[in-house]
Amino acid sequence: MNIVRDFSPLFTPKSIAFVGASRNREKWGFIILNNIVCGQFKGSIYPVNPKEKEILGLKVYPSVSQIPEPVDLAVVAVPPSVVPEVIAECVAKGIKAGIIITAGFAELGSEGEKLQEKVVRLARQGGMRLVGPNCFGVLSLAVNMHVIMPSLHPHQGSLAIISQSGNVAASILGRGNRWGFGFSRCISSGNEADLHCEDFLEFLGEDPETRVIMAYIEGFRDGRRFFNLAKRITQRKPIVMIKAGATQAGAKAAKSHTAALSGSDSACDAMCKQAGIIRANNIDEMFNISAALLHQPLPKGRRVGIVTVAGGWGVLASDACVAAGLDVVHLADETIRELDEFLPSWWNRGNPVDLVAGFWTGGLRKSINILLRSPQVDGVIVLGAGFSAMLGKTSPSETESHTSSETTDSMVADDIATLRALPELISRYGKPVILATDKIMMPAEWEDGLSQVLRDTGIMCYSLPDEAAEVFARLASYSEYLNGD
Amino acid sequence: MNIVRDFSPLFTPKSIAFVGASRNREKWGFIILNNIVCGQFKGSIYPVNPKEKEILGLKVYPSVSQIPEPVDLAVVAVPPSVVPEVIAECVAKGIKAGIIITAGFAELGSEGEKLQEKVVRLARQGGMRLVGPNCFGVLSLAVNMHVIMPSLHPHQGSLAIISQSGNVAASILGRGNRWGFGFSRCISSGNEADLHCEDFLEFLGEDPETRVIMAYIEGFRDGRRFFNLAKRITQRKPIVMIKAGATQAGAKAAKSHTAALSGSDSACDAMCKQAGIIRANNIDEMFNISAALLHQPLPKGRRVGIVTVAGGWGVLASDACVAAGLDVVHLADETIRELDEFLPSWWNRGNPVDLVAGFWTGGLRKSINILLRSPQVDGVIVLGAGFSAMLGKTSPSETESHTSSETTDSMVADDIATLRALPELISRYGKPVILATDKIMMPAEWEDGLSQVLRDTGIMCYSLPDEAAEVFARLASYSEYLNGD
Repeated sequence: MNIVRDFSPLFTPKSIAFVGASRNREKWGFIILNNIVCGQFKGSIYPVNPKEKEILGLKVYPSVSQIPEPVDLAVVAVPPSVVPEVIAECVAKGIKAGIIITAGFAELGSEGEKLQEKVVRLARQGGMRLVGPNCFGVLSLAVNMHVIMPSLHPHQGSLAIISQSGNVAASILGRGNRWGFGFSRCISSGNEADLHCEDFLEFLGEDPETRVIMAYIEGFRDGRRFFNLAKRITQRKPIVMIKAGATQAGAKAAKSHTAALSGSDSACDAMCKQAGIIRANNIDEMFNISAALLHQPLPKGRRVGIVTVAGGWGVLASDACVAAGLDVVHLADETIRELDEFLPSWWNRGNPVDLVAGFWTGGLRKSINILLRSPQVDGVIVLGAGFSAMLGKTSPSETESHTSSETTDSMVADDIATLRALPELISRYGKPVILATDKIMMPAEWEDGLSQVLRDTGIMCYSLPDEAAEVFARLASYSEYLNGD
Repeated sequence: MNIVRDFSPLFTPKSIAFVGASRNREKWGFIILNNIVCGQFKGSIYPVNPKEKEILGLKVYPSVSQIPEPVDLAVVAVPPSVVPEVIAECVAKGIKAGIIITAGFAELGSEGEKLQEKVVRLARQGGMRLVGPNCFGVLSLAVNMHVIMPSLHPHQGSLAIISQSGNVAASILGRGNRWGFGFSRCISSGNEADLHCEDFLEFLGEDPETRVIMAYIEGFRDGRRFFNLAKRITQRKPIVMIKAGATQAGAKAAKSHTAALSGSDSACDAMCKQAGIIRANNIDEMFNISAALLHQPLPKGRRVGIVTVAGGWGVLASDACVAAGLDVVHLADETIRELDEFLPSWWNRGNPVDLVAGFWTGGLRKSINILLRSPQVDGVIVLGAGFSAMLGKTSPSETESHTSSETTDSMVADDIATLRALPELISRYGKPVILATDKIMMPAEWEDGLSQVLRDTGIMCYSLPDEAAEVFARLASYSEYLNGD
C-alpha cells in the first residue's frame, strides 16, 4: 500500500463537499466553511444544506448526491444523529475521505459509541476513510486546505501536527503564526473512530512536505505499531511528542475528553527512548524543539559555547545548561586569544563570553564565528542578539529629542546583519546556534520587529536562556540516539 | 536604627545631582538622565558636567559643589578613575546617598578592587551610602524616581526587586509592563561595594510600599544575615528568589559578572526552606509566583478544582497539577449535582470540569463559583477564561461579512463580566483562582485586549496550564510554611 497515494483524497482533494453548511455566523457550519473560503482552497467547494441556496457566495446543494461533479473529501458538521445517513450518502457518491467535526459520540459513553461504530461500519464498507468525529479539522497547506475551527490561517511550511486535542493543535499553530513558522499538515484526530494517530504518523513519515512531526497524544490505539513506525521514521525525520494523561488524574481527564486510554507512562517513556522520539513536557517545549529541528544541524556533542550581551543572563544560561546535561566547556587558549584581539581588555576571558562593550562594535558576530570554529565547541547559545535592533526603535517613553542617531543606526544595522548572517554560519560549521533574547520584556511592537528580522532567516529565537539550553540538550540527545550512543 | 528613615535619601530624595550628565544620546549620562526627566521625578534634578550649560532643558552645574541647594542623592556616571574625587566632592556637599552606575571596579580584578575600596572608604568616612558600582540603577516609584538604564518606565505598584543583574531586573520590569503590574522599588545592586543585598532586603521588609519582594542573587555577602532577615520578613511579606550560580559553571560566570561568590547550592536550598523563601527556577517563574502573591489568598491545602473550556488543556493541567504535587480532587456528589443543573447533559461529571457548550452561556462563572464553594476544593485553576472575549474581536483572516453578531457580543460581555467578577469571588471564598489562557497563540493585539481587561482586576493570567499548576503549588507550599506544616 502506498500510504501517500491512499491518503490523497484527504490531504490533496480536488473538491470538498461541506455537509452542514450554515449561514449562522455562530455555527461551526459557517465558521469552518468561511475558513476554507478565506484560505483560498485550490479546488471546488460544494456547501450542502437543504434549506439554503447560497452561502459566502457559493452555490449550496440540497444533498451530497445532487452535487454534479465528483467529490474527493466530505467535511461533516451536522448533528450526531444525522451523521450515519450523511456518510451513507457520501459512500454512494463515491467520496473516499471524510472529516467529521461533529461531537457527541464515543466520548459520551456507550450510546455514542454505538452510533460511532455504525458510522465507521458504513464508511469502511464503502471504502471511505474518516477523521474524527469530535475533531477540530484538518489543514493541508499544499492545497490551501483550511478545514479547521479557529481562524488561524497558518502559512505553508514543513512542520506537521497530529493532535488528539484541537485546542493543543491551535496553540501550536498560533505559535507558528507568532514566530513565523509554517506547517505542512495539521490533523486534529478527535475520537479516532476510523483513522488513528498511527495512520497519520505513517502518512507524515512518508510525506515529502513534512520535515518535523509534532504529536499530542492522550492514548495510542496501537502502541506497538506507533513504536515500530516511529523507530523507522525518526531515522530520517524527527518526532516530537507530548504524551498527556501521564498521571492518574490526567489519564482520567483524557478518558472523558477523547475516550483515550492513556496506558503506562513509564512504558511510554521507555518506548520514546528506544524509538528516538523526543518527548516534550509542554506545548512551548514541543514547539521550541520542533522549530530548532527545522533549521539547526544536530550538535555532535554536549559542549556548548555561550555568548551573551548581559552578565546575569550568562549566569542563568550556565546554570540552565548544566541542569539540562550540557557542558559549559572550558575555552581553549587559542580561542581566548582570538577573542582577545577585538574584545575590550577587561573582558572575562571565559565561557560564557560576556561581550560587554564589544557588543556595540560587531563583536557579537565575530565571537559567534570564533566559538563555532573552535573544536572544543559543539554549538553556540547566543543571548541578547537582536536586542540592539530593538533599542534602535523609538521607545514610547522617550522624549521627542531622543531619536536615533548615526551610531544607533549603525549598531542596529550591525545587529540585524549578525542575525541575517546566522544561516550561513550555521551551515558553514554544521553546528547549531541557539538564540535567546527576552522577547517578553520588549513592548509588543518591538517583539514584532525582532520576529520580522528572524522570519527571513528561518531561525527561532527563544525568550529565556533556560529554553535555549533545553532545546540544545534535546538536539544533543537526538543526535546521540541517531549515532547509537 | 530605623532603616526606612536611614534610606530615605536613596529612596525618597528631594533632589538628585546627576554627575556625568551628557548631551550624547548614546551615553548612559544622557539616557539615564532622560529617563529621570521623562519619569517626572518629584524633586529637583541637577545635572553636573563642567563642559555643558544645559541638557534636556535643565541647567547644568560645573561641579557638585556649585549646586546652590542641598542634595540628597548623587547619581554617578563618570569614568571609573574619576569616581573617587566625585564621591569626595559629594561627601563635602553633605550628600548622604549615591548610585554609582559606572563599571570597571572589582569585577575586573585586583586593580579595580582597590579603586572600589577607595571609593567606599571615602563615602563611609563622610556618612554617605552607595549603591553599585557596576549597576543599572534604582527605581523608587513613590517619588517617580527612574534612575535606570533601560527606558522601561514601569508604573507604581507593590512589587519590589533586588537584583545582582541589571538585565534580569529589566526582564522583570518588562513583564510587569506587559501584564499590567506595578513596582514600588527596584534596586540593581551591582558590585555591592557598600550596600549589600542584605541591606536592601532589610529595607524592603520594612517598606510599606512593598508587598512582595523579588530577589535575583548570584552571591550573598552575609548569608547568615540574609537568612535571619528573610525568616522574619516572610512571616508577613513573601520573598521570591532566584539564586543563580547554582552550578559550577554558573558560579564561575557569576564570579566574573559581579565578583560574587555563589556558595553551596544545597545550603542555599536548605536556607530557603527554613526561612520560607520561595525559590524560583527562572525569570518567568519568579514573576508568575510574585504576581499571584499580590492578589491571591494562599490556599489552605493542595486540593485543586479545574474548570476548562478545552478538553486537551484539562488533561495537560491534570498532569501538571500532579507533577507539581497538587491533588486533582474527586468532586463531591453535591458539587456534581450543582454543576449538573446548568451544564449540558453530556458533560464529563468530573474534575477537570470540561465546560463544553456551557462555556457560552455563563457556565464559566457558575462553575468557578460552585468549585470555590465546595469544601473539597482549596482553590481553582481556570483554563481559557477571556478566550471568547478574544474570539469576539475581528480576526484579520475573517471575511468582511463575518462580523460580530448579537450572540457573540453577549458571549464576550459574559466572558469579560466573569473576569471582572473574580476579585469579588476570590475575596468572598478566600481561595485562589489561578488563570491560564494561551496568550501566545493569540495575535498580539488580542493578547493586549485580554491584558487590558485583566489589568483592571489586578489578576495575572498565565499562558500554559503548567504555569498555573506551578504557581498554585508554590502558594500552597508557602501557606504550609506559614502554618508550620
